[in-house]
Amino acid sequence: LEFLKILGCGSALPVGNRYPSAQIIKNKERYLLIDCGEGTQLRIREAKISFIRITHIFITHLHGDHFFGLPGLLSSFHLLGRTKDLYLYGPKGLMDILELQFRLSGTALRYQIIFTEVSGSEKTLIMQDNSIEVYSFPLNHRIKCHGYFFQEKQRPATLLVKKIKQYSIPDFVRGKIKEGADYIMENGTVITHEELTTPAPKPVSFAYCSDNKIKQKLKELLRGVDYLYHEATFMESEKERAKKTYHSTASEAATLAKDLGVKQLIIGHYSARYQNLQPLLKESQQVFKNTVLGYEGFEFSFTEGGK
Amino acid sequence: LEFLKILGCGSALPVGNRYPSAQIIKNKERYLLIDCGEGTQLRIREAKISFIRITHIFITHLHGDHFFGLPGLLSSFHLLGRTKDLYLYGPKGLMDILELQFRLSGTALRYQIIFTEVSGSEKTLIMQDNSIEVYSFPLNHRIKCHGYFFQEKQRPATLLVKKIKQYSIPDFVRGKIKEGADYIMENGTVITHEELTTPAPKPVSFAYCSDNKIKQKLKELLRGVDYLYHEATFMESEKERAKKTYHSTASEAATLAKDLGVKQLIIGHYSARYQNLQPLLKESQQVFKNTVLGYEGFEFSFTEGGK
Repeated sequence: LEFLKILGCGSALPVGNRYPSAQIIKNKERYLLIDCGEGTQLRIREAKISFIRITHIFITHLHGDHFFGLPGLLSSFHLLGRTKDLYLYGPKGLMDILELQFRLSGTALRYQIIFTEVSGSEKTLIMQDNSIEVYSFPLNHRIKCHGYFFQEKQRPATLLVKKIKQYSIPDFVRGKIKEGADYIMENGTVITHEELTTPAPKPVSFAYCSDNKIKQKLKELLRGVDYLYHEATFMESEKERAKKTYHSTASEAATLAKDLGVKQLIIGHYSARYQNLQPLLKESQQVFKNTVLGYEGFEFSFTEGGK
Repeated sequence: LEFLKILGCGSALPVGNRYPSAQIIKNKERYLLIDCGEGTQLRIREAKISFIRITHIFITHLHGDHFFGLPGLLSSFHLLGRTKDLYLYGPKGLMDILELQFRLSGTALRYQIIFTEVSGSEKTLIMQDNSIEVYSFPLNHRIKCHGYFFQEKQRPATLLVKKIKQYSIPDFVRGKIKEGADYIMENGTVITHEELTTPAPKPVSFAYCSDNKIKQKLKELLRGVDYLYHEATFMESEKERAKKTYHSTASEAATLAKDLGVKQLIIGHYSARYQNLQPLLKESQQVFKNTVLGYEGFEFSFTEGGK
């Protein structure tokens, strides 16, 4: 995971220069898109991110501010001649919506959409490759809603060239040493893994929670996560409205971040009623200091721990 | 019909500062929206047009650049508390798409959508009230597509206060005189309608043709129209592509305008390949001088004959 970029920090109602939910993660040479509110394809273009490098799209739920931009984005992929597979994750019904629109518009996509329906009440592995694992987990909203948990895999250690030469370590054992093995010389001397390698950075993890009235169980599901995005649609002064609409306040998001002991909390999905976002940030920071405001164009670097 | 405002003059692919199809007509104190590409709700807000005054929406066909903004706009109406009926016109399938999305998002609209399916190969009256008549008519595109013909009704003449006094014309006959009757005095003298009134302005008509490979029959269907919007997706140099994709060139649109003898042609729906639109305008004007470029924010006044 390289960075997270916020493309839209708004909620259901359009307001000023805030756009509906969309976030993008850079991972190696590809991009993972999380939610896709109306107009997201324009935000992606503004961010100068190549459409073809978007390989995976994760939709949390079927409220419009989280997916009304998806048909347009997928159509543009098609019109631009994409043939590369697209992996799409989302709730039951999402493919029905897309297929109906493609059928009625007479569109036969040139590329495959490989859809995985996300469901259930546990943290569930939905995708893995040699670099990351992605899990879905349930959120608590008015309709079925799932968050996504991105977990980097442990990368192998880097061999120290100097040591390789010093002990004349043959090719065929180097792979194992990278993975953690010691080297045993012909005379029986053990050269430890630690002496021979520079450890890979600790893998980081990131969880995305949008549209959620926080339940106790979420803490178990997200145990150990490094970085957290959590919606902060309201402030404490609108606590009752937050409850009623199955959303969270800035303070509640911060309490979750504090309980989880994350390194950084990013908030977003602000109600249209808040013109100025600083009070939301302040409210969150009073509970959990390491809060930052998500806003259009904001980029959070995972590799530098957010610095 | 007061004015037509272009909210989006682009076509399927997003490009620079061009947006997908959307046009709005001001008629009395209400607005009629024609097509609703992705992001149209933002364009409407930018134009400072009140959502609640949009009473009728006309969708030409189910290609995404003409309706992907509709679910978002209808959702915003709902979220803003609209209870006023909305009249929606469009092809078969449009309501299926909307209903599926509303169902899956758990949305029970607070207002009624009164949907009229548009179909058939003739000019068909789909709506009328005391001010206008609206007809649909078939266009020739890759999927079912209909244009819309807006016809003002003849307004009654205005009585001349001076004459009313001069001839002491009683209240109960004034309505009839407005509608065209002469006034017969008690002594039998006939005072003509013309002497007693200022005639109402001649009613104007406007036809909207988007996404269309022009067929001969269209000339019959649009006979007598005053103002014409017709797509000019391509230039003559891309004539073959226009044919293949069931679109028109600027020159073809102009030829239609010329044959119809309209007062003004507005072109739009430009292919993303044209960064500069002036060559399209020039090409059209070579055939039909009274062409103007439709572009975001362009406003065409019907009452002043486009001046």
